[in-house]
Amino acid sequence: MGYKISIDAMGGDHGLNTTIPATLEAVKRDPNLQAVLVGDHHKVKRALDRYSKVKKIKLSTLQRIAIHHASETVAMDESPADAVRKKKDSSMRVAINLVKDGSVDACVSAGNTGALMATSKFVLKTVNGVDRPAIVYALPSYNRETKTISKTYMLDLGANVVCSSEQLFKFAIMGSILAASSKGIAEPRVSLLNIGEEEMKGLDNIKNASKLLQDCDFINYQGYIEGKHIFDDSTDVIVCDGFVGNVSLKTMEGTLRLIEALIKKSVTEGSWLMKLPTIMALPIFRRMKKSMNLDSFNGASLLGLTGIVVKSHGGASANAFETAIFEAVKEVKHNIPKTIQESLEKVL
Amino acid sequence: MGYKISIDAMGGDHGLNTTIPATLEAVKRDPNLQAVLVGDHHKVKRALDRYSKVKKIKLSTLQRIAIHHASETVAMDESPADAVRKKKDSSMRVAINLVKDGSVDACVSAGNTGALMATSKFVLKTVNGVDRPAIVYALPSYNRETKTISKTYMLDLGANVVCSSEQLFKFAIMGSILAASSKGIAEPRVSLLNIGEEEMKGLDNIKNASKLLQDCDFINYQGYIEGKHIFDDSTDVIVCDGFVGNVSLKTMEGTLRLIEALIKKSVTEGSWLMKLPTIMALPIFRRMKKSMNLDSFNGASLLGLTGIVVKSHGGASANAFETAIFEAVKEVKHNIPKTIQESLEKVL
Repeated sequence: MGYKISIDAMGGDHGLNTTIPATLEAVKRDPNLQAVLVGDHHKVKRALDRYSKVKKIKLSTLQRIAIHHASETVAMDESPADAVRKKKDSSMRVAINLVKDGSVDACVSAGNTGALMATSKFVLKTVNGVDRPAIVYALPSYNRETKTISKTYMLDLGANVVCSSEQLFKFAIMGSILAASSKGIAEPRVSLLNIGEEEMKGLDNIKNASKLLQDCDFINYQGYIEGKHIFDDSTDVIVCDGFVGNVSLKTMEGTLRLIEALIKKSVTEGSWLMKLPTIMALPIFRRMKKSMNLDSFNGASLLGLTGIVVKSHGGASANAFETAIFEAVKEVKHNIPKTIQESLEKVL
Repeated sequence: MGYKISIDAMGGDHGLNTTIPATLEAVKRDPNLQAVLVGDHHKVKRALDRYSKVKKIKLSTLQRIAIHHASETVAMDESPADAVRKKKDSSMRVAINLVKDGSVDACVSAGNTGALMATSKFVLKTVNGVDRPAIVYALPSYNRETKTISKTYMLDLGANVVCSSEQLFKFAIMGSILAASSKGIAEPRVSLLNIGEEEMKGLDNIKNASKLLQDCDFINYQGYIEGKHIFDDSTDVIVCDGFVGNVSLKTMEGTLRLIEALIKKSVTEGSWLMKLPTIMALPIFRRMKKSMNLDSFNGASLLGLTGIVVKSHGGASANAFETAIFEAVKEVKHNIPKTIQESLEKVL
C-alpha cells in the first residue's frame, strides 16, 4: 500500500527552502508516503533538521524520510545536453536513477525543464511507440452551468515543437489515460486545439490526427477546440504540438500578469473614491490567480516514459511543490506508465 | 485633406444597428471624413434617417455621408469561396470595389473574416512580394516602469496558418511600418514569438526568420519573445504564423472570460462578507476588460494588399466599430499600402 517518491532536493529557484518543507508536509499528511531526499547530504540534513523542528514533525513521521547523497546540482540555465553528459551525480540524475532501479515509484523535480526532460528520457527511456515524452499540465476550467471548477489536461506544452499526426494521436491517448485516472471518469472528452471548430481549417497534421482520432474506439474524441474555450470545461484533454501549447500557456500567464498590473495601477493612481474598491479587489484577484496559476495547479507530468517523473514549476512555493508530490502519488496509484504502455500496444 | 471611407453597412452580427450609428458618430467627430455606406439602399436609408434623428446629426454633417446600393449580403458563416464566386453584388464586395476603383481611400467591414480576406485579395490583389495578406491587431500592453498603457501589434492572427521564414520576415516589415506610423515612433521594436528567449529553441522557419531580421538594417529587431511577455511592452511588433497568433489571441480571450466567470461566481456564492468586495470588483474588472478586449481595441488590418481594408470584430458595438473606422483613417493618412510596397521593394 505504501509508495516511495524521490525528491530532487536541490532543484528549483529556491532549492532546499522549498523542497524540504514541502516534503515534510506531504509525509505528515499521507501516512503511506515515503520520501527520499536526493542532494548534498550535509546540506539536506541541516535543512531537514531545521524545518522539522520549525514544523514540529514527529519522529515517526521523520522515519519515513531518507536522504540519498548526490554531489552535484543541475543549474536552472544549464543546457539539457550538459546535464546529461556532465552531471552524472546531480541530484536530478540520481533522483531519476532511483526510479530506474526500482528503489522508488516516482520522482519529483523543480529543476530546469529541458534538463529534466533530457535526463528522464536518457535514464528511463520512453515506452514503445513514443519517441519523446510529452509535457502535460492540468489547467483550471470553469463550467458556467454547473458553476464548478475542474481540470483540463493540455499536452504537449513544449517538449515536442514539431509533431506528426501520429504523435498528436499518441498524446491524445496518453492524456486521456491521465485524465481518466485523475478525474475519475470513464471516457474523458478529448479535443484537438485548432483555429476553427467546424471548418476544415488548420494544419495538415491536425487534420490527419483528427481522422485518426475519429477512427479510434478507445478515445472519446470531440473534434476541434479553439483557444477561447480552453478554460470553459468544453473538454477534458486538449491536444496540440509543444510549440502552440507553450505559447498558449504563456499567453495565459501574460494575461494574468497584465490584469494584476492594471489592478495595481488603479490602486496607486485612482481617485480615493476609486481606490477603495480596487484595494478590496486586489486580494480577490490574487486568490483567483492563485487558484489558476502555475503554482497551485503545480506538477506537470512527463508522459510516455517508462517511469513517473513530475516537474514542479521552478519558482514554486513549498505548498505548490507539495501539490506536485501528490500529483506523482496519484500517478503511482494509477500506474500511469504501465496503463499508457498497454493502451498504446492495444491501439497501435 | 479629406478622405473617404466605404462602410460595409450590412456586415457584422448587428449590421445596420452598429454600422450606421458608428458612421454617424465618426463623421460628426472628424470634419475631414466622408463615408459611403454600402448596402441595401432602402434599408440603409431608413436606418440612416432614424439614427440621424436620434443623434440629432446636422444636415451639413449628413452631407458627408453617401449611400451606395448593393443587393446582396455575405452571411457570417458563408464560405470565403462562395463569397467570392457567388456574391458579386454583396455590400462587402462592393465596398472593396470602391477602394479598387479609387472612389474611396479605404474600406471597413465587420463581415466574416474569411470572406473579407478572400474578397479583398481577389479584388485588390497583394503588393509585389506578398502572397497572402496578414491580419494584424493591436493588443494592449502595459509598461510597469512608466505605468503607461500602449499598443503592441501582433501578426499574423489567422490568415496564414503555415508560414515560411520569408513570410515571417515580410510580416516583420509590414508590422514595423504600421507600428511606426500608428505609434509615431521611428524604429519600432520587432520580436519573433518563440518558446524561449535566448536558446536556439523553436521551429526552423522562426530561426531562419531571425537570421533574416538580424541582417536587415531596416528593422529594429529585438530577438525572441515568449508568450508571457506579449502584454508587458517588451516590444512594439510581435511576429508569428497565423496559427500560433490565432491560438494566442484566443487564449487571451479565454483567460479573460474565465476570470470574469470566477468573479461572478464569487458574487453569487460567497458569504455576505465576501460578496461586498466582489460586487465592487466586478465593474473594475469589466472596465479593464473593456480597455483590453477585441471591441475597444477594435480594427484589425489586412496588411499586404494594394488598398486599405480594416476588419471590425463581428460582434462589435457601435463605439468599437467607430474605432475601426478611425483605424482606417489613420492608415489612409500614412498611406500604409504604398509605404509597405516601397519598403518591400527596397529590402527584397
